[in-house]
Amino acid sequence: MEFVVADLKTVDHIIAAIKEMFVRGAPLIGVTAAYGVYLAAVNFGSEKNADNDLINECNRIKSARPTAVNLSWAVDRVCTEVLKVENAAERIAAARFEAERIAEEEAENCRKIGEHGLSLVEEISRNKKGKTVNILTHCNAGWLACIEYGTATAPIYAAFEKGIDVHVWVDETRPLNQGARLTAWELGKHGVRHTVITDNAGGHLMQHGMVDMVIVGTDRTTYTGDVANKIGTYLKALAARDNNVPFYVALPSSTFDWKIRDGINEIPIEERDPDEIRYVQGLNQGETKTVLVPPAESPAANYAFDVTPARLVTGFITEKGICKASEQDIKRLFPDSDKPGK
Amino acid sequence: MEFVVADLKTVDHIIAAIKEMFVRGAPLIGVTAAYGVYLAAVNFGSEKNADNDLINECNRIKSARPTAVNLSWAVDRVCTEVLKVENAAERIAAARFEAERIAEEEAENCRKIGEHGLSLVEEISRNKKGKTVNILTHCNAGWLACIEYGTATAPIYAAFEKGIDVHVWVDETRPLNQGARLTAWELGKHGVRHTVITDNAGGHLMQHGMVDMVIVGTDRTTYTGDVANKIGTYLKALAARDNNVPFYVALPSSTFDWKIRDGINEIPIEERDPDEIRYVQGLNQGETKTVLVPPAESPAANYAFDVTPARLVTGFITEKGICKASEQDIKRLFPDSDKPGK
Repeated sequence: MEFVVADLKTVDHIIAAIKEMFVRGAPLIGVTAAYGVYLAAVNFGSEKNADNDLINECNRIKSARPTAVNLSWAVDRVCTEVLKVENAAERIAAARFEAERIAEEEAENCRKIGEHGLSLVEEISRNKKGKTVNILTHCNAGWLACIEYGTATAPIYAAFEKGIDVHVWVDETRPLNQGARLTAWELGKHGVRHTVITDNAGGHLMQHGMVDMVIVGTDRTTYTGDVANKIGTYLKALAARDNNVPFYVALPSSTFDWKIRDGINEIPIEERDPDEIRYVQGLNQGETKTVLVPPAESPAANYAFDVTPARLVTGFITEKGICKASEQDIKRLFPDSDKPGK
Repeated sequence: MEFVVADLKTVDHIIAAIKEMFVRGAPLIGVTAAYGVYLAAVNFGSEKNADNDLINECNRIKSARPTAVNLSWAVDRVCTEVLKVENAAERIAAARFEAERIAEEEAENCRKIGEHGLSLVEEISRNKKGKTVNILTHCNAGWLACIEYGTATAPIYAAFEKGIDVHVWVDETRPLNQGARLTAWELGKHGVRHTVITDNAGGHLMQHGMVDMVIVGTDRTTYTGDVANKIGTYLKALAARDNNVPFYVALPSSTFDWKIRDGINEIPIEERDPDEIRYVQGLNQGETKTVLVPPAESPAANYAFDVTPARLVTGFITEKGICKASEQDIKRLFPDSDKPGK
């Protein structure tokens, strides 16, 4: 794996980077999209039709991917600020200011998620009298996806830095292997003990007491507590419930969708290119190669997310603290959530 | 993928073929092991210590893999017949006869499983007024694993041949991708419509009414109804239960373990080489290549099976008919199961 820093210089670059998943993870998609609006503001300034052109560009960015709600949340937030002023230079400055503010807020949110989540890990560690705390995670909601500490990984890094003995079961996360490729890589870089497992293995581990808690991220969470996240998350939540393993979802409040009540029926689930399943990328003699696994004639279907109903979620770890997966408790932490502008 | 017919000429060949999974699937492992005892009988004839040597060879074959109970069942059955006679030629003949009988019985059992399972598929097809019956399967319990029609696939082939509109969701089945590589291949050869999905996808499909039933095979099933099968089966059973999708296990009675009561605590779960997870094999420009997916430094753990508790199983499709996953109903179909020799 290579760590690459790339410049995104046009709105088309931004859209392609989100669509092709060069940037991924709900918070990072949001921040990238926010800078997309800034690039749109630079393009259109205050010429005739500027408002319409800007709004069109914003809609184009918002449609890059359907599931993560942070995308439209961030675009709308920057767009609203831009449209408050008229002068071209002011618009550009407003867009840049707001995009930077979102990036800073999300980084700070991740830090706070780490702090609040740490208390949960500490409690388990105390109950186990200091023995290893085994945390299972699915996909990558680390700093490669979420600015700074990540969301699901923030409590893990916080616990690790505090000297708590943590070990992470890393679901490989088919089809794109974000767990095996990204989460394993970033945990390794930090020196956090971890083991890659197939997505199939979590239930067996939980049956045998080898998982103390599950922490995952989310791409969109309804205000009633239903959680859209990488395909397969729902299966882990079912296994956690069946084995009394606490199942937590870490998220900044930008990932709440305050408009949707029923996650399973209302959150759009992206269907991506079946070739992401059929072909697997990896290293062969030091070179990146791609291999075809099923017979060439066999079709595949690639649903990228699933929805875990609120009843299976033990709690949310947010920047404002921990709450239950219920409308009432979510609104206790975020009382202004249904006010305009939120 | 290549279809290869290989000769196994020594007991060591047999053991290696089972261990390295050149032959796999509980019924085929049993039949292969039965012929292993025949090869042992050929080697030892009736020389001094022949009994001990034969029993040692049988134990060596039985320890090739721990989870599939058909292995020891078939070995014990042939061994018992061999030890009934003393003359070398008779022993060889007895071994060959019993191994052939097991192979024929298992093929016939698969045919009957197809017949009994067909009634379930027909019922769903009638209820759906002839619309496509969507069946999800995990791993490969087809004719590549189970002699002739396979176990889990036997009802599918039977329904297909009867003109019922069936479509199969094929779990790719990490780490060794038996679904993507084997099940997809054999369904394709038969012309059965199918779609390869990640192991993560089944829950989402069930939530959205896209799965009418699940049929899987098993490597060992307790007489109380707990089912050991390829890792990840338990997660599909949980999702099926959560969405009221019938979850069936197809098995010849050779896969029942009449000695074990508690599947989760008593069935040994094989832990295989972590490299089976870390490396993925497939085609690159027409050549078989292997790629490394996670970082080279990241460890992996490879639990090959899990146990689905009886409470999640809708029913068993056996050669004797369909029964519930309970001791009482299993023993209704197999009343002689606890008699000696069974």
